Amino acid sequence: MASPSSSSIDQVSWRASVLSRFLQQSTDNSFQSLQSSVCLQYSPPELSEKFEFDVREMRRLLDDHNFEDRDWLMGLMMQSNLFSPRNSGGKVFVSPDYNQSMEQQREGWLTDRTLEGEMRKLTLMDVVTVFDHSLSVKIGVHFFLWGGAIQFFGTKRHHDKWLKDTEDYKVKGCFAMTELGHGSNVRGIETITTYDSNTGEFVINTPCESAQKYWIGGAANHATHTIVFSQLYINGSNQGVHAFIAQIRDLDGNMCPNIRIADCGHKIGLNGVDNGRIWFDNVRIPRENLLNSVADVSPDGQYLSEIKDPDHRFAAFLAPLTSGRVNIAGGSICSSKISLAIAIRYSLTRRAFSVSASRPEVLLLDYPSHQRRLLPLLAKTYAMVFAVNYLTKVYVTRTPKTNKSLHIVSSAFKAMFTWHNMRTLQECREACGGQGLKTETVLVILKVNLMCKPPLRENNVLMQQVSKALLAEYISAQKRKKPFEGLGLEHMNGPSPVILAQLTSSVLRSTKFQMDIFCLRERDLLKRFADDVSQHQAQGESKAHAVLLSFQLAVDLARVYSERMVLQTFFESETCHSEGPLKNVLGLLKTMYVMICLEEDASFLRYGYLSIENAAAVRKEVMKLCSELRPHALSLVSSFGIPDAFLSPIAFNWVEANSWSSVHH
Amino acid sequence: MASPSSSSIDQVSWRASVLSRFLQQSTDNSFQSLQSSVCLQYSPPELSEKFEFDVREMRRLLDDHNFEDRDWLMGLMMQSNLFSPRNSGGKVFVSPDYNQSMEQQREGWLTDRTLEGEMRKLTLMDVVTVFDHSLSVKIGVHFFLWGGAIQFFGTKRHHDKWLKDTEDYKVKGCFAMTELGHGSNVRGIETITTYDSNTGEFVINTPCESAQKYWIGGAANHATHTIVFSQLYINGSNQGVHAFIAQIRDLDGNMCPNIRIADCGHKIGLNGVDNGRIWFDNVRIPRENLLNSVADVSPDGQYLSEIKDPDHRFAAFLAPLTSGRVNIAGGSICSSKISLAIAIRYSLTRRAFSVSASRPEVLLLDYPSHQRRLLPLLAKTYAMVFAVNYLTKVYVTRTPKTNKSLHIVSSAFKAMFTWHNMRTLQECREACGGQGLKTETVLVILKVNLMCKPPLRENNVLMQQVSKALLAEYISAQKRKKPFEGLGLEHMNGPSPVILAQLTSSVLRSTKFQMDIFCLRERDLLKRFADDVSQHQAQGESKAHAVLLSFQLAVDLARVYSERMVLQTFFESETCHSEGPLKNVLGLLKTMYVMICLEEDASFLRYGYLSIENAAAVRKEVMKLCSELRPHALSLVSSFGIPDAFLSPIAFNWVEANSWSSVHH
Repeated sequence: MASPSSSSIDQVSWRASVLSRFLQQSTDNSFQSLQSSVCLQYSPPELSEKFEFDVREMRRLLDDHNFEDRDWLMGLMMQSNLFSPRNSGGKVFVSPDYNQSMEQQREGWLTDRTLEGEMRKLTLMDVVTVFDHSLSVKIGVHFFLWGGAIQFFGTKRHHDKWLKDTEDYKVKGCFAMTELGHGSNVRGIETITTYDSNTGEFVINTPCESAQKYWIGGAANHATHTIVFSQLYINGSNQGVHAFIAQIRDLDGNMCPNIRIADCGHKIGLNGVDNGRIWFDNVRIPRENLLNSVADVSPDGQYLSEIKDPDHRFAAFLAPLTSGRVNIAGGSICSSKISLAIAIRYSLTRRAFSVSASRPEVLLLDYPSHQRRLLPLLAKTYAMVFAVNYLTKVYVTRTPKTNKSLHIVSSAFKAMFTWHNMRTLQECREACGGQGLKTETVLVILKVNLMCKPPLRENNVLMQQVSKALLAEYISAQKRKKPFEGLGLEHMNGPSPVILAQLTSSVLRSTKFQMDIFCLRERDLLKRFADDVSQHQAQGESKAHAVLLSFQLAVDLARVYSERMVLQTFFESETCHSEGPLKNVLGLLKTMYVMICLEEDASFLRYGYLSIENAAAVRKEVMKLCSELRPHALSLVSSFGIPDAFLSPIAFNWVEANSWSSVHH
Repeated sequence: MASPSSSSIDQVSWRASVLSRFLQQSTDNSFQSLQSSVCLQYSPPELSEKFEFDVREMRRLLDDHNFEDRDWLMGLMMQSNLFSPRNSGGKVFVSPDYNQSMEQQREGWLTDRTLEGEMRKLTLMDVVTVFDHSLSVKIGVHFFLWGGAIQFFGTKRHHDKWLKDTEDYKVKGCFAMTELGHGSNVRGIETITTYDSNTGEFVINTPCESAQKYWIGGAANHATHTIVFSQLYINGSNQGVHAFIAQIRDLDGNMCPNIRIADCGHKIGLNGVDNGRIWFDNVRIPRENLLNSVADVSPDGQYLSEIKDPDHRFAAFLAPLTSGRVNIAGGSICSSKISLAIAIRYSLTRRAFSVSASRPEVLLLDYPSHQRRLLPLLAKTYAMVFAVNYLTKVYVTRTPKTNKSLHIVSSAFKAMFTWHNMRTLQECREACGGQGLKTETVLVILKVNLMCKPPLRENNVLMQQVSKALLAEYISAQKRKKPFEGLGLEHMNGPSPVILAQLTSSVLRSTKFQMDIFCLRERDLLKRFADDVSQHQAQGESKAHAVLLSFQLAVDLARVYSERMVLQTFFESETCHSEGPLKNVLGLLKTMYVMICLEEDASFLRYGYLSIENAAAVRKEVMKLCSELRPHALSLVSSFGIPDAFLSPIAFNWVEANSWSSVHH
């Protein structure tokens, strides 16, 4: 723990002099107007904290791509009145106002299909998240879900007809997949579509209340069109889930015939998004509105598809959700960055309790417990930034061959990073004490919004899917007697790593040990999961049910798989860098990331990867790393490059922001 | 895992027939109006679930006291229009409307000081929490903090003057302790009070912006009077923190002279409570307004106190906060009960995914992962209900001798139970999927309110205080070479318990093992904590700083201490009961409570209280207990005795509640 700086001692003696000055006057009974200068002084942390590495260089490393686009959009937001600038404590802050005017940067959003175009899109979504989750969800629904569905499920006829109008907001799209009766389980949806060859139309129907489309972002007020997911029946037989385009409102916003829409009701958080419910009463749409990249129906009513297996067809339909997962993973880390920047800045200006009566009060971040609360989360966030950059690259360079791996990694990262973000927000809020409760503090808003983001509910389902995919790969590699390829399991082709019996600090900090212990754990858990499932099967359970019974190992395995993938991206980002102060700090962060994973995961002890003594050494190392990272805390959050205006008054002069003179009388 | 009930199979074939009926009609192109009967049918869980023990008997065991008062107040709330009854899905629900009219049940709130009167008060607070947190906070501030301060800090002259008017709401009180610059650390507050012997008045002043009273419930709009905590200077020397009564508004609601008040600004959650900030500009109050049970100032300005040690005086001033902790501990468990009742009822009516294509979809609570998510929390909640009943008794029968123990137990339980509640709310919300996001689902509201309850911030501080007190007791017992007495550490007087090398299921379920392993862990952690602190001291750290460095062991120890205390109350409640189905279920809950504590706490492996094999046996036992408790899930939440109207539409017929006919057109 750093000792209190001399400036803090000055401050205390200054406060003592203020108090005694007051006491000398206090027998004077006349009213004394308070001087605003007579105050516990706020001291900007920049004055006392050191910067030992190049913050701009770190920022470039973190942001990875499209630097100018980020700066341009953030600058635009700060200058525009649309983003409700407010003055507090002598600084300007922007905050959500749920308006939609993003026309300037929509151009090329869907029609620019180059790699650069895709990277730019993801960058801008990231920046929008800094400002407001509701807005990013709305943009996400219109461009990524509606627009993405047309792009990926549709063919040329759909692209020509819809993409330009989508970019120009002439149509406003939504995405009607989930139903009241079926959320995560899309395969079970009950909406029914049939084909009428007399008129060349599809007829979409909601046969029962549980089939109402539910929780559809944008549907309640604004959307003119929707993608409808529905069971397709041809000549009485079910061809499975397909996607259609249906108009739900005319251009004046009037509801179309045979469409009924209701609001989902008041939600806490994300009220900026108009979630709605839709009923289709035998709505007729042209045959051409079937999004036919996977399957088509001929004018005379024949079902045509090159993919014969309905399961594969279904998988093809879910593919565009990948973009959603990539966005959410990135957005979660973005929101973690903001909350850490606020909480750490505050902890460098707020003091509480003296260690002894004669000593000054201690800065929050100089408490070992406060360091332990925030700094491991900071290290994790750094690690996950590199992982998001990796995921982005895998996404924009995807090919049919990498799709499976993309699916698995994006599922795992989405679940892990949203969980990380929930926890970070909660810890940061608590670390800000009473100040963390105010709306202006942003933290609470981010938390409520995230809490209310519908996809959150399926994290455990996603994790189990990841492990099922790894299990399938494991079984198939064993059967084929071939090495693992793809999915990141290549490390299992070699012999099992051996961990030293006695872990000194220098071993704990070595790259070899760090990768070895993560690989060892992953390899062992995959084997345990496979054994557990086959044991249940041997006892007569179906395979599907056996997997359900092994859910604990499944969730553990998926977590362990992600943690190793994240670490790998950290290594790769680190090795490109030349020796120097920046690389030293990266090394501390990386080791902290590994140590905190080791400390928090009981499997290391549960399955004996670490002895009791070594687990104790790990815990000690975490505390040591806390004090080594403490001096870099301010530089590390400054490197996030988030403009002050996007943070909160408590990240700056919170005394001034709370002063009487700042009250609107 | 229970197999799907036959009624669920009926339901699926019924749905299949509905679908095929529709398909036969679908070539008919005329518009078919939907029959509301054509729906996934909601089946009340009462029809399929069994009740194997007497729910009314269980409820009496849980509620423990003042049954009629509870029923009376809940009935009153349901019948009164003040509590905004709303119809949803054919049922009536009451929900918060932030009004204040609780006149009927205020009588005797403060003037009835019998033991029965106190029990009745706590009961009514509990019931109010069922309805709305904001309301309970408001009542808590007025009666428990303001009223309690007058009762405990004041003497006869204050009781005579203020208590009756408080009961009659003629004065509306608030409690101005925390300041912008000092929250948890009351000792550091900067408000200054001096005495003017010329006029016989105290002069209260806010010398600087950081001394503004901050986050004061009730201050922004309604309170007429406040308790002010302030440093008291007599003849230039600081006598420490004292409490005074000051008027801040006249009876017409106009601000008093030299008082400035501002709102704390918009918060997310608890906006029903008007948190405010107060500045005192040399406000003069009569000498008699010093609450003088601990210390007084004579008319000529002499400071008089029987307690010479300022630390002891300070401790005496904080004593009334105990009532707040008792209330919050109870309220947390209350809110956990509500959220579990909602989530478990929903999980008994909602299905998702089929295990195989030919099988019907599975009830949520028949998934092993869903059982594992909710049932351990249910067991913990039961255990904590017994602990709250114990705490209530210790509180109402408190004597100067038991005050220390009450302080420690109430601090530990408050921290543990609010943490438990946060987690329960989050899990229950996620367990309800999309339906958990709607305001009407209540879960989110409870969560946001809890998240925003200011005292939450200090849980870690409380836990460290608990461990510091245990450490002091440990050191003093060693010095005196006398056995432990009080504080619940008596179990340490005997020899250390011995745990069997091989833990079978029947050993795991035995009372002896359960108590032994908890005591062993507590004893060992207390010793480790003491050793760690003295090691740091040996390295030259001050004692205070040494304790800060050992914060991890401190928090662990306090948790472990609470868990053992909770278990003890469970044993005591259980033993009074005669053999039978109810006692059997209690036994399952108790074992689940122990097993989940063993599984979740890595210390068992970290410090070797459990071997790797035994830890695996514990994990298996948890899964086994999940399936054994599954059939009792409905009876166990029914035993909470929460009227349907206080739950949420999704706890009942959520299909009907979401039907088109329920939309307000």
